[in-house]
Amino acid sequence: MKVNSVRFALVVVGVFGWSMMLPSATQVGLSDKVLVFPYETDFSFVSLIPQKEMGLRAFTLCMRVATELPEDRQIILFAYRTADYDELNVWRESDGRVSFYMSGDGIFFHLPPITTFRTSLCLTWDSRTGLSACWVDGKRSTYQVYKPGHSIRPKGSILLGQDPDKHLGGLEAGQSFVGEMTDLNMWDFVLSRSMIQAWHYGHRVPKGNVFDWGTMEYELNGNVMVVDDD
Amino acid sequence: MKVNSVRFALVVVGVFGWSMMLPSATQVGLSDKVLVFPYETDFSFVSLIPQKEMGLRAFTLCMRVATELPEDRQIILFAYRTADYDELNVWRESDGRVSFYMSGDGIFFHLPPITTFRTSLCLTWDSRTGLSACWVDGKRSTYQVYKPGHSIRPKGSILLGQDPDKHLGGLEAGQSFVGEMTDLNMWDFVLSRSMIQAWHYGHRVPKGNVFDWGTMEYELNGNVMVVDDD
Amino acid sequence: MKVNSVRFALVVVGVFGWSMMLPSATQVGLSDKVLVFPYETDFSFVSLIPQKEMGLRAFTLCMRVATELPEDRQIILFAYRTADYDELNVWRESDGRVSFYMSGDGIFFHLPPITTFRTSLCLTWDSRTGLSACWVDGKRSTYQVYKPGHSIRPKGSILLGQDPDKHLGGLEAGQSFVGEMTDLNMWDFVLSRSMIQAWHYGHRVPKGNVFDWGTMEYELNGNVMVVDDD
Repeated sequence: MKVNSVRFALVVVGVFGWSMMLPSATQVGLSDKVLVFPYETDFSFVSLIPQKEMGLRAFTLCMRVATELPEDRQIILFAYRTADYDELNVWRESDGRVSFYMSGDGIFFHLPPITTFRTSLCLTWDSRTGLSACWVDGKRSTYQVYKPGHSIRPKGSILLGQDPDKHLGGLEAGQSFVGEMTDLNMWDFVLSRSMIQAWHYGHRVPKGNVFDWGTMEYELNGNVMVVDDD
Repeated sequence: MKVNSVRFALVVVGVFGWSMMLPSATQVGLSDKVLVFPYETDFSFVSLIPQKEMGLRAFTLCMRVATELPEDRQIILFAYRTADYDELNVWRESDGRVSFYMSGDGIFFHLPPITTFRTSLCLTWDSRTGLSACWVDGKRSTYQVYKPGHSIRPKGSILLGQDPDKHLGGLEAGQSFVGEMTDLNMWDFVLSRSMIQAWHYGHRVPKGNVFDWGTMEYELNGNVMVVDDD
Repeated sequence: MKVNSVRFALVVVGVFGWSMMLPSATQVGLSDKVLVFPYETDFSFVSLIPQKEMGLRAFTLCMRVATELPEDRQIILFAYRTADYDELNVWRESDGRVSFYMSGDGIFFHLPPITTFRTSLCLTWDSRTGLSACWVDGKRSTYQVYKPGHSIRPKGSILLGQDPDKHLGGLEAGQSFVGEMTDLNMWDFVLSRSMIQAWHYGHRVPKGNVFDWGTMEYELNGNVMVVDDD
C-alpha cells in the first residue's frame, strides 16, 4: 500500500513538474491556492515558516478545511512542536470533537462535523483569561477556560498533514491529514467576532502576522499538491 | 477533581481581581456581558434579585444559552424555589427535551438540541388558559396546556447554574450548568410573537419587568466569570 | 413479483398510450421533462445516445435526482459500458457514499444523503491531474485524485436505471434506480465552479456537448414514464 503510493507519487512528479518525494525548496505565497493531501501517508506534510517567532500568549488560528476521512478517524489539523513539547496541536478527534493541546491535556469542542464540504474553522485563545473558543463558519462555540497564564514557546516547527511525536519525526499514517486545506492564517492576538466573520466571508481583514496565506513561506514534503482554488 | 477546581479557581481570582470563591457583594447590570460557568461544580451559581415579587400568573422567560455538555446530561437552566416548592425550574432533560416544572409534574418540549453555539430560548405561560410554549431562535413550539389556574408563589430565591433541592442547599454537580448564559429577561406577561422575534434579533423590546439583563442585580458564588460579549 | 410488474406495465401502456415493455423508437428532447422509474425492476431503463463519441479525457456529468429508496440500498445512477469494461458507472453505494468507477476500482465521496427531495449532483474529472470531485447543489466536495492519465473508451452504451454486468445484459433489480431523474447533461471538459452553480440554479450555461437534456436522443425500455416537470 505504502509502496504503491510512493510509486504513484513518482509518476505524478512528472505530471506536475516538481518533486513531491523530496523536500522542495522553500516556496512563497499561496494566494488562491489549495493544498491537496490526496492519500493517507506517513511522509507527506507541509512545513510552514512563521513571519515571527511563535512565543505566543494569545492567538487566532484560522483555516478552511475539507476531508473525506471517516467520522471516527483522528485527524491532525495543525502541529506546532518544540523539542520536548507539542506546543499547539489541533485535532479532529475520533469522537468527532475538535480539540487543541498546548503542552499537555487538551480542550475539546462539540462542533458540527468536518465534512467533504469546506468548513471555515478558527480557534482563539488568550492566556490572560484562558478563554478559548472555536468558530465554525463565523459562529462562536461556548467559551471554555484553558491554561490561563500559559505561554506557547518559540523556535519550534510547524507542520500541516502530520503529527510529529518527536521533533520532526515519529509520523503516523493513521493520524495524517487527507483532504484539502486553504487560507490558513494566524494572528498573535484574539480577533473580534466581526473580524472572524469578515474572514469567513472572504472580506478584507488584517493580514495574519504569524501566518498569512498569501505570503506564506512553506516547504512541500512527500505527496502534497498545490492546486488552484476554484 | 473538585479539589483541583477549587485550587484552580483561587489562582484565577488573582488574574481577574475579584473573588469567585466567596459570595460577591451584590452587583448591578450585565449589559453586553456573558456569564461563563467554566467547570462542573456543586458550588458555582449566580443568585438573581428580581425587580418585583415573583407571584406570577403569567410569564415570558428568555435567555441565550450555549453549552458543551453531552446531549444526555441533565442541565438546570433556571431555578426559582420557595421554602417547600420548586416554583419554576427550567431543564434541558437527559433525553434532550426542554422542560419546565411548577410545583410538581413538568411539561416537556422536543426542540432542536442546545449546542455549543448560542440558542435563544424563551418560555411563555399564561395561567388563564394554561397555554405554554417554547420559542427557539424566534420559532414557537406547539402549544401545550399546563396548569391552568395555577400561581407561582412569591418570596423565593432565583439561581442560575444550580438546582437547589432545598432552600439554597442540596446542590448536585451532575445537574449543574456548564457553559454560557446571557441576556436573560423575564416579564410577568406573555410577549407577542413579534416581540419575541424582536428580542431574538436583538432589536428593542419592552424591558423585562421581573428581570432585565441590563440592570440585573446579582451575586456571584463559586467559580463563575463575567466576560464581555463579543 | 416480476410477473406482477409486467402485468401492471401492460395495463399502464393503455393509459399512457405508448409501449413501455418494448424498446420505444428513438425519441428526441426532454426539456421540462422528468424520467420517473416508478418500481424496482430488472428490465426498465433508458438508453441515451451521445452527441459525440465518448472517448473522454475529462468530463462534467450533472443530473437532478430524487428517490424514496432506503438509505442502505445500492442505486445505479449512470452506466456507460463498452464490451469488456464499465467505462463510467456512477452509484449511490449501500453505505450512502456516491462513487464512480472507470474500468476497475472506484472512488468514493461522503455526501449529504440523496432523498425524496431533488438533489442536483455533478461529477467532474480531469485525466491530466486526476482531480475529481462531486458537486451537491453547487457545493464542491473535497478533491480526490483518481486515475490520472486514464482515458474513457468510446463506442459503448449508456443506460439510466440499470447496471449492465455485460454489454446490455445482466441487469439486477436490487441495483436498479427507482425515483426521478431530470436535467442530465454531460460535457467533455471540467466546468468551472460558477458554471456548475449556474446549472444548479437553472441559469444559462453552455449546453452539454456529450449530452444535452433539451435535445437528448433516448429510448425508453420497460416501465419508465416521461412526465412534465412541475
